[in-house]
Amino acid sequence: MAEPKCEVIVLGRPAVFQFYNEQLSQKFLIHKPWESSLPLDQFISTHAQSIQAMICSPKGIGSQISSSLLRLFQSLRLIVTTSTGVDHIDLVECRRRGIAVASAATVFSEDVADFAVGLLIDVLRKISAADRFVNNGLWPIHGDYPLASKVGGRKVGIVGLGSIGRKVAKRLEAFGCIISYLSRRKKPVSYPFYPDVHELATKCDVLVICCALTDETRHLINKEVLLTLGKEGVIINIARGAIINEMELVQCLEQGEIAGAGLDVFVNEPNVPEELFSLDNVVLSRHVAYYTEDSFRDLYELICGNLEALFLNKPLLSPVLDD
Amino acid sequence: MAEPKCEVIVLGRPAVFQFYNEQLSQKFLIHKPWESSLPLDQFISTHAQSIQAMICSPKGIGSQISSSLLRLFQSLRLIVTTSTGVDHIDLVECRRRGIAVASAATVFSEDVADFAVGLLIDVLRKISAADRFVNNGLWPIHGDYPLASKVGGRKVGIVGLGSIGRKVAKRLEAFGCIISYLSRRKKPVSYPFYPDVHELATKCDVLVICCALTDETRHLINKEVLLTLGKEGVIINIARGAIINEMELVQCLEQGEIAGAGLDVFVNEPNVPEELFSLDNVVLSRHVAYYTEDSFRDLYELICGNLEALFLNKPLLSPVLDD
Repeated sequence: MAEPKCEVIVLGRPAVFQFYNEQLSQKFLIHKPWESSLPLDQFISTHAQSIQAMICSPKGIGSQISSSLLRLFQSLRLIVTTSTGVDHIDLVECRRRGIAVASAATVFSEDVADFAVGLLIDVLRKISAADRFVNNGLWPIHGDYPLASKVGGRKVGIVGLGSIGRKVAKRLEAFGCIISYLSRRKKPVSYPFYPDVHELATKCDVLVICCALTDETRHLINKEVLLTLGKEGVIINIARGAIINEMELVQCLEQGEIAGAGLDVFVNEPNVPEELFSLDNVVLSRHVAYYTEDSFRDLYELICGNLEALFLNKPLLSPVLDD
Repeated sequence: MAEPKCEVIVLGRPAVFQFYNEQLSQKFLIHKPWESSLPLDQFISTHAQSIQAMICSPKGIGSQISSSLLRLFQSLRLIVTTSTGVDHIDLVECRRRGIAVASAATVFSEDVADFAVGLLIDVLRKISAADRFVNNGLWPIHGDYPLASKVGGRKVGIVGLGSIGRKVAKRLEAFGCIISYLSRRKKPVSYPFYPDVHELATKCDVLVICCALTDETRHLINKEVLLTLGKEGVIINIARGAIINEMELVQCLEQGEIAGAGLDVFVNEPNVPEELFSLDNVVLSRHVAYYTEDSFRDLYELICGNLEALFLNKPLLSPVLDD
């Protein structure tokens, strides 16, 4: 007789199910609310008692893993989030309940770093703007075109020198950018360290936001920081929307208080402030900095590995909280 | 009494005159056809006898410096082109007439290399496509989104390992790309060398065109090469449009024979094949890979330096043909 499969609920409809639904459903007994006609709360109460593991993502309906939600899952032993960030999970409550948490760890680091650099080159060198210009048939009509800014020589401040931040720095060094960073602690690297974001903004032309969203980093980048960065300043955000005061960023961009921005993340996704749509110095993306075939294959394997580790009583592959 | 100023004609309306018109006009006696009501041929015949130097660009009306044009300028001693490429100048005729030629040399190399890498990240990671998607308000409507391709691990063939090509290679190495190259001769570098473009296309996922346009490189990239590159293949061109058989490239892109392209240059600029406008896997730009404030300041200084060298009988700063 075959072993009973591990029962897993999926909340937030992670994108990995677009690509590995079949494989995951063969390996585990997966409960997917989006395939059920039941409302989410009824779906949860129907299955909650037998659920041992949860796969969740920070995006979509039901993505907030709050204490009141956790209370419903009395047999839950592991949460695997498909993200690097864990700001959507109440970690204190998980610890209290002895629920282990695993993340996507560094699976996406290279892709997110590549995307950050791509956004920065795009903003400085006006690539999406040029693409729009040509696609709208304007080239034969408008002779003149504004000059762009050189990438080399830019003073780039990395906000959060973790796995992604270090990879952004390494890539930008190859372009001749001058790197410094902000972090909770000084790291064993040669780049200048600034513990204060205003000081970093004073020293830099560009800020690349690579830190986790926490109580300390929420609205870390506000109007004051943006004004300090100045009229030639550029902001790149591939981390979380709420690390920036979005309304103040929009105002600064509209009023020319900073030069441009490349934004993959927003406060209230999938809603993007419409004021940004008309700005040629802003490159907008839809939270896809991590979105490659290679990363999703790695993520799929990591999810399976973490779930299997739980049921084999082995150490998790990418623990955030180990039980 | 002040020395008589050097008489210079400007053909092709180089963009440097958008930004340094005043400074150049103070230093030299500059004849600009676009400020005259005379037709170009009359303008030329009015001034030709006294012209000692020419500033030209490969773009715009009157940009072809042919033997019949050169015949009109009996006192011409120097042509300074504002481009790195000199394919718009009849060099054989210049040599025969003892006319020296100076180019922009490597002034633009870093900027063009940055732009090439920006186009490649954009195509692989679909940045302009994401920008279009968000700007069109589609994010809240369409849940699913196609996966992109990772930059790292891509096998990139540099076609022409000159100043720009080497800089592209250095930057892409920082992303974990695997570099090889095509060149007339093997260079003292560690990258694998392929003297044949078909062999390079067999070994690579991406070709970045960085070579000069010559009789040998015209239509170097044709349908056969593109089919060899294959369905995952990507073409980046920041060199000259005619190095690629543009019609065959358009067909291959339309039919999915290759995966995408990032194109800053075209055969018949400012006209871009309209079939490309509807393709989300193509990033179009308007021959601005070199277009930054920093490069133009450097170019302005190089033009002045070359013109002054002529009149002081000193060696040119960036000679292509020295008299």
